[in-house]
Order: sequence, then structure tokens, then C-alpha cells
Amino acid sequence: MEFDTIAAISTPMGEGAIAIVRLSGDQAVEIADSLFKGVGSKRLREAATHTIHYGHLIDPKTGQVAEEVMVSVMKGPKTFTKEDVIEINCHGGLVSVNRVLQLVLNQGARLAEPGEFTKRAFLNGRIDLSQAEAVIDLIRAKTDRAMNMALGQMEGRLSRLIQKLRQEILEILAHVEVNIDYPEYEDVEEMTHQMLLEKAKYVKGELEQLLRTSQQGKILREGLSTVIVGRPNVGKSSLLNSLVHENKAIVTDIPGTTRDVIEEYVNVRGVPLRLLDTAGIRETEDIVERIGVERSRKVLKEADLILLVLNYSEELSEEDRNIFRAVEGMDVIVIVNKTDLPQNINLEEVRELANDYSLVTISLLEDKGVDQLEEAISSLFFSGAIESGDLTYVSNSRHIALLSQAAHAIDEAISGVEIGTPIDIVQIDLTRSWELLGEIIGESVHESLIDQLFSQFCLGK
Amino acid sequence: MEFDTIAAISTPMGEGAIAIVRLSGDQAVEIADSLFKGVGSKRLREAATHTIHYGHLIDPKTGQVAEEVMVSVMKGPKTFTKEDVIEINCHGGLVSVNRVLQLVLNQGARLAEPGEFTKRAFLNGRIDLSQAEAVIDLIRAKTDRAMNMALGQMEGRLSRLIQKLRQEILEILAHVEVNIDYPEYEDVEEMTHQMLLEKAKYVKGELEQLLRTSQQGKILREGLSTVIVGRPNVGKSSLLNSLVHENKAIVTDIPGTTRDVIEEYVNVRGVPLRLLDTAGIRETEDIVERIGVERSRKVLKEADLILLVLNYSEELSEEDRNIFRAVEGMDVIVIVNKTDLPQNINLEEVRELANDYSLVTISLLEDKGVDQLEEAISSLFFSGAIESGDLTYVSNSRHIALLSQAAHAIDEAISGVEIGTPIDIVQIDLTRSWELLGEIIGESVHESLIDQLFSQFCLGK
Repeated sequence: MEFDTIAAISTPMGEGAIAIVRLSGDQAVEIADSLFKGVGSKRLREAATHTIHYGHLIDPKTGQVAEEVMVSVMKGPKTFTKEDVIEINCHGGLVSVNRVLQLVLNQGARLAEPGEFTKRAFLNGRIDLSQAEAVIDLIRAKTDRAMNMALGQMEGRLSRLIQKLRQEILEILAHVEVNIDYPEYEDVEEMTHQMLLEKAKYVKGELEQLLRTSQQGKILREGLSTVIVGRPNVGKSSLLNSLVHENKAIVTDIPGTTRDVIEEYVNVRGVPLRLLDTAGIRETEDIVERIGVERSRKVLKEADLILLVLNYSEELSEEDRNIFRAVEGMDVIVIVNKTDLPQNINLEEVRELANDYSLVTISLLEDKGVDQLEEAISSLFFSGAIESGDLTYVSNSRHIALLSQAAHAIDEAISGVEIGTPIDIVQIDLTRSWELLGEIIGESVHESLIDQLFSQFCLGK
Repeated sequence: MEFDTIAAISTPMGEGAIAIVRLSGDQAVEIADSLFKGVGSKRLREAATHTIHYGHLIDPKTGQVAEEVMVSVMKGPKTFTKEDVIEINCHGGLVSVNRVLQLVLNQGARLAEPGEFTKRAFLNGRIDLSQAEAVIDLIRAKTDRAMNMALGQMEGRLSRLIQKLRQEILEILAHVEVNIDYPEYEDVEEMTHQMLLEKAKYVKGELEQLLRTSQQGKILREGLSTVIVGRPNVGKSSLLNSLVHENKAIVTDIPGTTRDVIEEYVNVRGVPLRLLDTAGIRETEDIVERIGVERSRKVLKEADLILLVLNYSEELSEEDRNIFRAVEGMDVIVIVNKTDLPQNINLEEVRELANDYSLVTISLLEDKGVDQLEEAISSLFFSGAIESGDLTYVSNSRHIALLSQAAHAIDEAISGVEIGTPIDIVQIDLTRSWELLGEIIGESVHESLIDQLFSQFCLGK
């Protein structure tokens, strides 16, 4: 395939030591060379692949030095996109990196769309669709576990499994073909049914195994939306601060929105908690007053995990009981704080209300019990041994949907065979499952879907 | 000189396609090599300088793949620090880049202090102190002009001028030596005085020329602190939005502070306006009500430029007149907004109050007059032809202070000669000016100052 030459800023925006403007395409080397003045008469087009060149970019309009740069020349096909790739390392300031970008655009490069470099890696056949999707997961990963999961997928772990299962289905289909072409051989039919059931059940089992990992996979990928709830003065802010200080918090401005929408991530034993409405807690400590108003109900509804805080030194109040009612049916951990003060709460009653929720007693003031809380969070979502690293995890909603559709189609095929449905009907279900799995790795997928997938990427990737 | 091996994240923090972890020092290549697994048995220590290598980092503790990377090998002395430099390009996510940094630290690299890479470039003699200082100015530049100024300084424009002037002073000093050593030759003394005055006046002239650029230089470097002031409903928010939308606004969170301290830069014809208290304007439009309170007075006091907004469709009020009084003696541009409505303001009276301030009438609603406003801002601060690019600008407060001290010392020497002060006293002043200029380029400067200068840098530079 042949494409035009694209360019984009590939490092995060902001002030730093170094920023990178990346180009990919047939004209990449020529465009960079037309701006570059190295030491002596060195020309980039004569440079060996995978070499680095110090020099200056000269603005052709003014003849003046525009920036001091290091240019990396990487010639296809052994590059990220399989095309010629140029990386211009310049100073990491907003003006300098935008100036370098503008210069290469003036020389004929086109501004890349979000994800377009990775899209080319996919379209040029270096990686498949699930690997491409893993790239963005890797960048967005909030914990080591999430990164390892993405890394595994990027290295093709999921792809290989999907390809193996598709191969199995193809083999079944080949036998079915024989059966349809030579219906007169009854023993062939018999054997086909036998083999078909066996292989189809194997594929189904594998798909179900994959789907079993998906809940954990999704949590690792997206984080657990967590709300801290409790009436005033139970220690919600202290709990928040404790979680943030004990762990590394990552605060993310959500792009394209105003500053008041902030996500705060806390990594609790490998579980990324996405703390919702923390600004609200920090500012006012009055989230409880707002229970009952639309917005608070909405925040609660969106949560995957509720941390319900009670005061050890005060009796349970009607407000506390209201909160229990508001979070009924959700994943809740009940936290009785302030064990450093004299007990006034009736723990029997709390246990009754808490029912089968986890219950921990802590003193944030004395920093006691936080370990148990973290343990409770971790075990609530990771019952199995997730650390093994050998498992292939599915985390992407698109993959999960396709896998369950494929499992369903296989199931249909199995029941079909068992109740004696004509084999050419069974064939349709099998083909369908083969196609659905193909969509995961991008072998049978519509262009508009591809466009939509890559548009979620950041610029310059 | 010999140093240990340092490492830091050199790209801005955030999510992006690529991030860089940079190492510098004797062990840089070895440390990277101990983690690197390339294609085949390729070893980084055997790599040619200025080459790029694709591969994976393996965590020695687990033997697992930790990240997919491109490693640039650059061997000293032709590097940024003159030492061996390794740049590890990894995925631009917070987890991945921190993981890579952690791996190299585990292998024996030390976390670099802010500015330590550039400090090494200075200590190893690749650049002088004024060039090093220009690096940070370049990264922080908010406009093209500011970047060009920093680039010129980084390329040694100021350094060369300073060196030339120091050379002139040295020559004078040499003659003075002769004069002191052979006081019996009167004609020598005569000639020395003649030459000394001539040369000293030349140096003085050059220093004064440099100092004349410093006001503009400082504005280009630091931006103009600008406050929009006016009573409610005159259109302060509209003016702010208009300035922001017509120009590229750069919003900067000031590191280490909470989010409510925000600087917003607007580039108006090459003049970076640093808009103060814009959050206040955006939220409440009530800055006027707060005039008189401590905080608003403080904001006004800090401003280099006041944009005073009046309402064309309303008569001047006592409040308006109070504002004029509050900003007396400052650089003010008076803006009469809402010319789209019927006139009720007495423009004669406004002109009288405005006195010699610039006065523009505009309609933000109809987008009329904003050009004139921008012109007024630009001409208020850039009367001369700044665009020429040939001038060497001084922008750094440290340099400005040293230059004026040096000019003062030269002046003392000149008056000394003119009133017949003994030549060995004159010599002291000359030597002092020579030393002061040396401090600019770091040839005679105390270690603690160097530490303090580089600590202002961002990490990884």
C-alpha cells in the first residue's frame, strides 16, 4: 500500500527537556532533509538507516536557524509503520515543538490524525488490530498489572490464541465441506459429527475461559470507579488522603473538558481505583447532604465500588442507614473509622446492615487498619491468582462482545449437531464464529470501524 | 572531569505516543545493555555511536519483558553532555516511562537533579553558562520571538559579544600593566590614557546598547503580566475570550501548587501576555468589587499592563473613575467596548481621564477594533524594529544586573582617568568589569550560584 507522508508531535504536550516530531511515509526523509543542516555537508537522504544526526533546522522562508535538533533516520520496512520514519528530537517547549511541526507541514507533510501511525502499522501488516488496540491500552495503563496485560496483548498473546481457535474452526469447516460434498458416505457423516462436537466444545471451552478473565481484565484496563460515602465528619477526606498518600495517585485532566472534571487514580495493590467526585469531597465534605439529589445518585450509580465510612465513636444514625439503603445491591466495603476514640457504635448492628459486605475497622488518625482495607479491596476483585502473568486477559469491550457472540455461535452449532440440524445450517454458525473472531484481530472488519477505533488514540501515535 | 551516571525522564509528563528516559555517564551504555534484549544477540556496548536499536527491556528480577523500546546509543564526546548518552524511547504512558526509569535506577544509575544534564554540558565545557541558561529560556518560550531570542543566546550570540568585550578590557589592562611597570616613560602614559579612554568608552557603549535591549528582552522572556479591569458587565470576559480565541492560549499549571493557580499566556503579535487572575474573571466577573481589598491591589501592583474596560453605552460612573485612580502611573490601555450599542459615554471625558494612555474603541460583539487593541499592545512595548533578529537581546535578570554593574565599573574607570586618578586604582575598576562579564558566561562564578541556576530547570534536561 502507498500513503502520503504524515507528521505529528509524538511526545506529551507540556514543558520538558525533549519533544519529538515524528514523520512517516515515502517523503519523510526528503522533507526532513530539506530543512536540515548538519555538520559539514552531511545529507539525511544519504544516511544509513537507524542513525542519529545532530544539526539545525533552517526555515526555508527566512534562511534563519529555526531550532537545534537531533534527527533519527529509520528506513522502512524495519520501522514502527513499516514506512520510512523520521523522528526529530527538539527542545521540549510548546513553541519549539510547534515550530518544528509547522516546518515539516510547510514542506509537504500532512498532519497525522490521532492514531494514524499505529493505523499504518496495522494497514501495512506489521501488527493486527488487537495488537494495535493494546498500544493505546499500554499508554493509558494506570498500574503495572494493566501495563503487563497490554504488553502481553501487544506482543500478540491474544492474537495467537485467536488465530489458533480460528484454525480449529477452519478444520471443522473443512470436514463439514467434505460431508456436504459427499453426503452418501454415512460413516464420514458419523465421524464428522463426532469430530465436530469434540472440536467445537474445545473451542467453546477456550472462549469461555477467555471470557472468564474479562471482568478482571476490564478492571485492570479501566480502573474501578470508586465513591467514598458517609455523613460529615466520619473521615472521608482523611480516607481519601490516606489512599492517595500511601499509593501513587495519578491525576488526569480529561482532555477537552474544563478543569473541574478530574479523574484521580490510586493504585491499590495493582487495582486502579478511579476516585469519583474527589473534588467534591475535598472541598465540602458534604457529599451525604447531596444524597437524594440527582447528581449524587448518578455518581453512586456509576460506581463499581462504594467505600462506606462510619464513625466508631458515634451511634449509628438514620443518615447512616439511609446510605446503606442507597447503595443496596452494589459492591460495598464498610469502613468503621476512628477506633482511636471510645466506641459508641453498635458493631452488631453494623454487621447486620453490612450483611455480606466486607467490614473493616480502622483508625486513620493512628494509621491502623489501612492494610486490611487495601486487602479487602484487592480480594473483592481479584479472588484468583492474577499475578501469574501466564493467563491471556481480555479487557477490551469490543473483544469481549465479539468473544461472547462467537461463543454463542459455536454453542448454536453444537446444539444444532446434537438435535440433528442439517449440516449446512451448522456450517453457517461455524462460519459466523470464525468471522467474529477474525474481527478481533482485524481480518474481517469494516473500514469505518477501523477509523473509529484509531480515532480514540492520542495524536502522534 | 568524571561523574557518576545519571538518568531521568526527559519528555513532558502525561500521555503521549513516545516518552524518553535519558542516561548520561560512563556507565550509561552498560546499564542500558544489561536490560536490553535486541534482535539476535545484538549488544549495545558493541553498537556504533549515534545508532538506534529496537528491542525489549527485560526486568532482571523476573526475567519478563518490561517494555518494548528503541534505544539510541550516543558515545561521548559528541553528545549533549560530552559523556556517553543513552536515550530509551518507550511508550508515552505514566506507568511505562516510570517503569523504564525504575529499571535503569535499579541497575545503578542515579536519578538526575533538575537541569543536571545541561549542568554537565556546562561543566564539561561544551557550552558556557549563558548558553546553558538559554536552554531553559528556549523551553519556556511562549512566543516565536522569545524562542528566537533564546536560540540566539544558546548558539552563543551573547557569549561571543561578552567574550569580545572582555578581550577589549584585557587589552586595556595589558597597556595599563606596561604603564605601571614603566612609569618613567611619560609618552607611554599619555598614549595609554588616550587608548584607554577610547577603548573603555567603546566597551561602555556596547554595554549600554545591550542594556537598552533588556526591557524588551525581559518582556519577551517572561511575558507581560496583564490584568483586565473594569466594572461588571463592561465585557471583561468577552475581552478575555477574544484574546484567547484570536491567539493561541497556553495554560500552564504552576508545578507544585494547587490547581487554582493558573497562568494563561496569550501571544499578541509576538508579545506574550501573562493574564493574571483570569480564573477570577471567568468565574465571577466581579473583580471590580474587590478593588480596594488587599488581594486585588496586589494583583494590580504586580501587573505590567492594565487593560481598563469601559462601557460605550453607559455614562462614566464613579466606579470607573475609581479604577482610573487605582491604576494611576501604570501602563494602561483604555478600551471602550460595546460600540454596537447607542453611545452614552462622554468620550471627551474618557480622553481626559485617559490622558496619555492609549485609547481604543471596540465592539467585541461585532468583533470590531480588536486589531487596533492588539496594535496598541504591541506598539506600547515594541517601539523599535524588534523583528530584525540581528540584535543580541539580554533578557535574563542575572545578566542584566551583571551588565549594569560592569558598565558602572567601566564608567568609574573612565572618570578615574579623566580626573587623573592613579592608574593602579583605575586598574581595579577595569579588572572588576572584566570579572563581572565573566560571571555571565560562567568563567568566574561561584559553585553555589551554579547549583542554584540549574535547579530552576525541569527534570531530565
